[in-house]
Amino acid sequence: MDRERQQELREKDRQYVWHPFTQMKDYAAQDHVLIEKADGIMLYDADGKSYYDTISSWWCNVHGHGNPRIKEAIRRQLEQFDHIMFSGLTHQPGIELAEQLVQVTPDGLTKVFYSDNGSTAVEVAIKMSFQYWQQIGQQSKTNFVFMENSYHGDTIGAVSVGGVDLYHAMFKPLLFNAIRVPSPDVRQLGNERTPEREAALVADALDAVRTLFRERAHELAGIIVEPMIQAAGGMVIYPAAYLRGLRELCAQFNVHLIADEVATGFGRTGRMFACEHAGISPDILCLSKGLTAGMMPLAATLCREEIYAAFYDDYATQKTFFHGHSFTGNPVACAVALESLRLFRDEAVLEQSQAAANTLTEQMNTFTSLPHVADVRQLGMIAALDLYRDPETRTPFASDLRIGTRMYHAGLAEGLILRPLGDTIYYWLPLCTTPSQIEDIVERTQRVLRQVTAPLS
Amino acid sequence: MDRERQQELREKDRQYVWHPFTQMKDYAAQDHVLIEKADGIMLYDADGKSYYDTISSWWCNVHGHGNPRIKEAIRRQLEQFDHIMFSGLTHQPGIELAEQLVQVTPDGLTKVFYSDNGSTAVEVAIKMSFQYWQQIGQQSKTNFVFMENSYHGDTIGAVSVGGVDLYHAMFKPLLFNAIRVPSPDVRQLGNERTPEREAALVADALDAVRTLFRERAHELAGIIVEPMIQAAGGMVIYPAAYLRGLRELCAQFNVHLIADEVATGFGRTGRMFACEHAGISPDILCLSKGLTAGMMPLAATLCREEIYAAFYDDYATQKTFFHGHSFTGNPVACAVALESLRLFRDEAVLEQSQAAANTLTEQMNTFTSLPHVADVRQLGMIAALDLYRDPETRTPFASDLRIGTRMYHAGLAEGLILRPLGDTIYYWLPLCTTPSQIEDIVERTQRVLRQVTAPLS
Ligand SMILES: Cc1ncc(COP(=O)(O)O)c(C=O)c1O
Ligand SMILES: Cc1ncc(COP(=O)(O)O)c(C=O)c1O
Repeated sequence: MDRERQQELREKDRQYVWHPFTQMKDYAAQDHVLIEKADGIMLYDADGKSYYDTISSWWCNVHGHGNPRIKEAIRRQLEQFDHIMFSGLTHQPGIELAEQLVQVTPDGLTKVFYSDNGSTAVEVAIKMSFQYWQQIGQQSKTNFVFMENSYHGDTIGAVSVGGVDLYHAMFKPLLFNAIRVPSPDVRQLGNERTPEREAALVADALDAVRTLFRERAHELAGIIVEPMIQAAGGMVIYPAAYLRGLRELCAQFNVHLIADEVATGFGRTGRMFACEHAGISPDILCLSKGLTAGMMPLAATLCREEIYAAFYDDYATQKTFFHGHSFTGNPVACAVALESLRLFRDEAVLEQSQAAANTLTEQMNTFTSLPHVADVRQLGMIAALDLYRDPETRTPFASDLRIGTRMYHAGLAEGLILRPLGDTIYYWLPLCTTPSQIEDIVERTQRVLRQVTAPLS
Repeated sequence: MDRERQQELREKDRQYVWHPFTQMKDYAAQDHVLIEKADGIMLYDADGKSYYDTISSWWCNVHGHGNPRIKEAIRRQLEQFDHIMFSGLTHQPGIELAEQLVQVTPDGLTKVFYSDNGSTAVEVAIKMSFQYWQQIGQQSKTNFVFMENSYHGDTIGAVSVGGVDLYHAMFKPLLFNAIRVPSPDVRQLGNERTPEREAALVADALDAVRTLFRERAHELAGIIVEPMIQAAGGMVIYPAAYLRGLRELCAQFNVHLIADEVATGFGRTGRMFACEHAGISPDILCLSKGLTAGMMPLAATLCREEIYAAFYDDYATQKTFFHGHSFTGNPVACAVALESLRLFRDEAVLEQSQAAANTLTEQMNTFTSLPHVADVRQLGMIAALDLYRDPETRTPFASDLRIGTRMYHAGLAEGLILRPLGDTIYYWLPLCTTPSQIEDIVERTQRVLRQVTAPLS
């Protein structure tokens, strides 16, 4: 794209666009990167400069950009029909995707309710759980439980069960009351991490839930969790034992376990779904992002048959679940999701990515000896580390240094899209990333890290 | 599609899919219509039987299904790049669409914030308005006002400002408190409708708002309305004078006017936006559905510059709007929306649809003399009527007769997709509908109406 056209677009971007999660003044003196092409893990700006999309465009992209089979699936579906309503009408891609989702997700989930994004998948889960208890005669079960550090989206219902104050505190007067339980964040153990201490931490976190459930289960509809990784809350990877304990407590005390796999679903953690690391099935499961391989908006909320059954009755009994979105079950998005699942099978994507994940493990190890680095962690194609002024004592950098933002900017110069969460640097790689790309990404990141931290040491 | 395959899909539909807004037991003995093809206003089921999509697949479709220019726009965008994140990165379709939206929407709206569906467009509006007052030092302005009969979506924030109890009453414990004002529903005047009485009704409805604002404006962030037509609330068409009055009151008392044009936007009412009927500009505007010509999920919330400006500051002042969705500004959806706006221009869509709207007026007049029909009404390509046992006295049919549902079923047999709201029968036609198609649709509908009501007379 010629420079004049670029300039024109940049001015219009400033004039008309309000970007999400962005302090727009940060971009007064500096431009948003204008992307013109994407291919595999690479993005190309309008000057042709390339960048590794190390965070899969917000944890969405699965098979890389521009996958020819996905494009062909879109073309094929458009030859048949584009969008039609999903009430009263139905269609093959919507039906077949529902079947496949029931098959690939953890056991016991039997029905699929579509919506458009991760936030609405969570809203559906909350409303479904709430209405279920009303309809089986346990009207006092109206409250929800969430974990500290959790993030479930930005609509009011999703924010109400969110545990990151930066995003949520402002909106308190609009939120329903929900109950926070501790996160078994093993980073709390600092340098004292041993298997025993981890187990004790998990036991403590579960005790908090048990105490709450014992006292108030009769008021509780469900508990919502991001299985294995609290993503937006800082890439907190926690032990699978916590999930197993939670599953037992929910069964024992009759509280729905709602698993939000919007971010973790579809192979990113090394398993198709993060719940598999713990060998558990939730009562309700939320999916989005990777569902369409990161191509277009689509979400699904799956539930157990007994939940569905509590809504299934004569119309006059008024048990209908009155929830829906205009674009529910968009046929093009469903066709894309189906093709993505075919790709998983035909190209043994999960198995293939295992080699890459092993390389990622080796490479992440090389960070541990670098200055300012602590808590290097990984699960499948996700890896993270935290930067501290003094990592030994976990003394943070002054927040006005905005280390993460500096890493972001320096990363761009090195051809990396990094998007740190505070001072947590992370990768969330497409499953198509090759071992040698991972080596290159890590080498570049370490160069960036030295550049950013050297003047501060 | 052969019958065996159809049967297989129908069984899977029952086994795996939970359809939106649907009492699934209604479909125990009866099938969802399995759609296999769509073209213009027509849908075709797996047996090749055709149906008029008289409600534009939930008020979304604008130019008809399968428009070749839209398909080509998708293909073109996919050749460039598919989905990329819209924070830190930007792209031509997202920028150009924002520019165009600012240009085509009512004056004074300068910034575009994207999201994925109508509900999130409303959630963004609510949170934006709320945070605005917090940041300009008017912290007590935390409440929202809505109209009875209103519908703004199904996420908890949108439900909190919803006025249709059927959808919303159940979830009360999860909702924030909002304040209901009367709807200037001229149907209240029954057979006594005169311009004077309509004006008095509007004046009364505005008085209620004035009284509320006088007492509590210091606590009020905004009032949200569906301009001109309360759609899901029963296709309530109200006088433009109400909107003008509301605009004045909002300015006078410093309360945001939030216009939800998710349903009415993009030409459906005979103007590009329903606000134009009243010649007003809101402070915040919500768009979705027709934004992509009904092809795929995309939404936008536009606001005045002063609102944007209240968030624009040094990062450390903590004024960032922390809202975003993974698929924000999806490039494919933006490219489709741009092509739809080009179609509006190149094919003079609004002007063309005027002839069709005139035919619709003539044709709707033929309903007025039919038994059981009352309150025939129309705005642009939207028209509605209510069915009563006795239309003179507005005595309804017994609700367990489910007249609307009967109309729906009988409509299918006649090749019509109708989706009555209770006993309100309506059309929400694609702008490409021709006068002769309208005649055919109305003729079929009247046949259906006679079939359904004759045995009840
Ligand atoms: C006026 C209005 N606002 C908001 C919505 C919600 O949109 P969505 O279904 O895309 O969430 C609708 C949907 O019918 C609507 O009619
Ligand atoms: C775990 C989790 N849940 C829900 C969401 C919300 O999804 P969306 O941004 O599509 O609304 C996210 C998005 O980042 C997420 O990570």
